[in-house]
Amino acid sequence: MRPDPIRLAVLVLLLFIAVAATPQNSAKHTSSQAAARQSKSDQEIRAVYDGWAKAFEAKDLDGIMAVYAPGDALVAYDIVPPLQYVGKDSYRKDYQEFLAMYDGPIKVEYRDLRIMSSGDVGFIHAVERMSGTLKNGQKSDIWLRATSGLRKIHGKWLIVHDHISVPADFDTGKAVLDLKP
Amino acid sequence: MRPDPIRLAVLVLLLFIAVAATPQNSAKHTSSQAAARQSKSDQEIRAVYDGWAKAFEAKDLDGIMAVYAPGDALVAYDIVPPLQYVGKDSYRKDYQEFLAMYDGPIKVEYRDLRIMSSGDVGFIHAVERMSGTLKNGQKSDIWLRATSGLRKIHGKWLIVHDHISVPADFDTGKAVLDLKP
Repeated sequence: MRPDPIRLAVLVLLLFIAVAATPQNSAKHTSSQAAARQSKSDQEIRAVYDGWAKAFEAKDLDGIMAVYAPGDALVAYDIVPPLQYVGKDSYRKDYQEFLAMYDGPIKVEYRDLRIMSSGDVGFIHAVERMSGTLKNGQKSDIWLRATSGLRKIHGKWLIVHDHISVPADFDTGKAVLDLKP
Repeated sequence: MRPDPIRLAVLVLLLFIAVAATPQNSAKHTSSQAAARQSKSDQEIRAVYDGWAKAFEAKDLDGIMAVYAPGDALVAYDIVPPLQYVGKDSYRKDYQEFLAMYDGPIKVEYRDLRIMSSGDVGFIHAVERMSGTLKNGQKSDIWLRATSGLRKIHGKWLIVHDHISVPADFDTGKAVLDLKP
């Protein structure tokens, strides 16, 4: 059969319309995929946080450090001095000393947790209750504030920044350790 | 002129190739645009921070609050109690009280500032020196830690979360106000 020029022209037109329309459809698709990914990212970040809490409660130092980015990608402002911990090694040492203050397990509880993420960057913050028994037998039960910044590195969300603190009373110079949310 | 079926078929093929190739080109284009946007986002977030510092140094409360997201989108953990400020109004009151402690301007200096952003979410952190003269005549010169989470809302980066603190000494119960980076 010899091709009919009119049918061919119509085919060109239809093909053009179909292909030209594709980017719009794919953009819509991408947009709903982005929303799903964002919610998925929030869930993944929440899982990182829960993983940290589980390891922290068990005083499992390797499990704790598994949620952090390697090397100097990690910069942490902890509840104790110095001003900042630069690098995973120094923060690990800080954790080791902190965990050593406790006798037995530590209990962690969050409140008012919020997660925001987009693409490969996210952050999470919450007020956090940390309770346990210190080596000197004293019970410790503190509400503190926790903020973490995360980055998705090679498909895995890792914490690149921690900021943990209690407020300070400028009149007395005391750290305020007895606040409740 | 009667259309030549062969030329039409070639046209179809060329058109198909051209249009089918478009998404790939546009994906490449989008990728380099994304990198440029990210860097642009980092610059915009830096500008928000610098805007805050300028307003803070001038003790311009409206200028300070202009960098924050409206209403309950803002949750802040400040250097002073309570544990958290929920909402822009309560944080504004906190700023008002803080600024009132100082006589004359306040000087702000950052160090080790880092910005990460992707899409419409970003965070920034730095160690920050805040110096000035208190109303009682005493000089105040403190290094603190500052972390902010930002969201791009209606095309504008706004701070939705602040975390400002100094470390605490658990042996003395004191807030540690004399640290240097």
